[in-house]
Amino acid sequence: MRRLDVNLGTRSYPILIAPGLLYQPALVAAHLPSRRAAIVTNTTIAPLYLARLEAGLREVSIDIHAIIIDDGEAYKNWETLNRIFDELIAARAERTTTLIALGGGVIGDLTGFAAATYQRGVPFIQIPTTLLAQVDSSVGGKTGINHPRGKNMIGAFYQPRLVLADTDTLATLPARELHAGLAEVIKYGLIRDAAFFDWLEEAMPALLAGEAEVLAHAIERSCRNKADIVAEDETESGVRMLLNLGHTFGHAIEAGHGYGNWLHGEAVAGGIMIATELSRRLGLLDQHSVGRIRELLSRAELPVTVPALGVERYLDLMSADKKVADGRLRLILLEAIGRAFVTADVPVSEIGAAIAACGGDG
Amino acid sequence: MRRLDVNLGTRSYPILIAPGLLYQPALVAAHLPSRRAAIVTNTTIAPLYLARLEAGLREVSIDIHAIIIDDGEAYKNWETLNRIFDELIAARAERTTTLIALGGGVIGDLTGFAAATYQRGVPFIQIPTTLLAQVDSSVGGKTGINHPRGKNMIGAFYQPRLVLADTDTLATLPARELHAGLAEVIKYGLIRDAAFFDWLEEAMPALLAGEAEVLAHAIERSCRNKADIVAEDETESGVRMLLNLGHTFGHAIEAGHGYGNWLHGEAVAGGIMIATELSRRLGLLDQHSVGRIRELLSRAELPVTVPALGVERYLDLMSADKKVADGRLRLILLEAIGRAFVTADVPVSEIGAAIAACGGDG
Repeated sequence: MRRLDVNLGTRSYPILIAPGLLYQPALVAAHLPSRRAAIVTNTTIAPLYLARLEAGLREVSIDIHAIIIDDGEAYKNWETLNRIFDELIAARAERTTTLIALGGGVIGDLTGFAAATYQRGVPFIQIPTTLLAQVDSSVGGKTGINHPRGKNMIGAFYQPRLVLADTDTLATLPARELHAGLAEVIKYGLIRDAAFFDWLEEAMPALLAGEAEVLAHAIERSCRNKADIVAEDETESGVRMLLNLGHTFGHAIEAGHGYGNWLHGEAVAGGIMIATELSRRLGLLDQHSVGRIRELLSRAELPVTVPALGVERYLDLMSADKKVADGRLRLILLEAIGRAFVTADVPVSEIGAAIAACGGDG
Repeated sequence: MRRLDVNLGTRSYPILIAPGLLYQPALVAAHLPSRRAAIVTNTTIAPLYLARLEAGLREVSIDIHAIIIDDGEAYKNWETLNRIFDELIAARAERTTTLIALGGGVIGDLTGFAAATYQRGVPFIQIPTTLLAQVDSSVGGKTGINHPRGKNMIGAFYQPRLVLADTDTLATLPARELHAGLAEVIKYGLIRDAAFFDWLEEAMPALLAGEAEVLAHAIERSCRNKADIVAEDETESGVRMLLNLGHTFGHAIEAGHGYGNWLHGEAVAGGIMIATELSRRLGLLDQHSVGRIRELLSRAELPVTVPALGVERYLDLMSADKKVADGRLRLILLEAIGRAFVTADVPVSEIGAAIAACGGDG
């Protein structure tokens, strides 16, 4: 079993990565402050994993209540959150009742936000079942829901007590979702780990083939990169912003194109290409690196052009992003593969040109 | 100007108490991380204080957006919270935009929860305009909204950067609300400050007459008591529970009687009487102390009997309270004036008898 720790003082927690973890209830039980827990999952994941997880926890005398919600980013909203609250109240969930998120990023974000705000905060455990959730959304404590005018506009920083990444769950993951997860994996190489990017260029065929050991290494290295950043800057006032490479553009794609038409990872891949093109236009990144980035994203079967929403629409959507400070949009750019930085000094004309160069003009 | 500090490490903040603070915009400006702020207030408070607060802040070059919501506990819900989010997004509020709560406890709880969750957290300042908010709800970081099945069921612990208690605002406060605030003031004497309780017995006529210096002392001493407790136990895992004296019963009164029919402080007064009666029945508190407590609450024009909802209804409503752990209800009882403790060992029959003795039986 691979184990790494997210170091956040009294809120530190372990991430465990291995096949079959879903069926080791003692790992979960060891992190519960009482004998009560509620599992939140969705209609896709429940038939695959819920019954066995529930049965395992009952065997170790945990009182379990399951809450099954609809599947999809479109349900990451207040209505679903309120359904979770209604069920928790009906089940008389207490301050010591632990919420367990069993599913992908949407389940993790929703459940985490429910845990952050039910009775002003209850314990929380993540069992991510998608590559995206295992390498990104289950690590770092970002929780929240979407608002019609912006993704993740409402939320909280709230840390889990434990993350269990069972690599067996990736075997049932649709290929398109595996590819979407690879966008975030590639992102870690781009922002701070050039050696990992090199490794990904070699390992891509094995990753696409779902080779368990190769996937486990990619997950561990991704989580290690993210955990290091989060430990340094939990609430995103500094270095953590680098994790948003491609995300400001990506959020505009998701909002403008309708949540759910593109998967989050696909939108991030498109956003990474805009950030890459913008870095090149500003003389920061050489053409060879641009080619390597485009090539690796393509090999991961991710988009390298973006929807033609029109440059103005992109800029408007981006201005509602959380990364605006004092009216200025902060962007993450690359000065090399493995080296990213934050800037608020990019002329809008250059941003527009980069969006257009990636196919974003109307 | 009276000043005291809530000591919470990096999240420490000052409470300032004096007449006229509302019109000292430099105090607010010194605590803003950017030049932007949004004031949340209600239709009752806005005509009294909003224009001058806004004008003052604009004079010191703060860009201000005002959000005016309906007045009353009935609006402390998701719909109102979402209206605040809508206005913040429409105004392009950023992560560094500070939310300023101008009003009573409802405004403070709602605005604080909006600040805790808008873009995963923005800065927050409290300007409480009721006695209740000045002595209780604006101190300690509890924020949240009500759920149809329970008060404050959804919320977060989130600390303000500054609390400004302008004692001039109490001059416009309806007498009934002043009395309701006194319930929480008396509570501090009961749980940990016998000398303060003695002082309140002397000072009650001056408090009821609205004498500014006497009120300022009561506010400071109340905040000092609360700040000490919160510094010791921010998230209510131990000593902070003592602040809930009368509140489990009080919440049952509010929920069972319909939010808004009794003011929160009135319900707390009724709840204190049940806790007092229960303490006496269990042989913890002598009859003389019971008489002093009843007398002081009566002189503050607070209820000393409770609505006849029926004992079963009380017990049912209380079982949904946040203070349930492992299925057992934790109650705050008194062993003397100035000495409270937490217990989960009270027979339900005794609880029921105390409720009935205070008039709660159907």
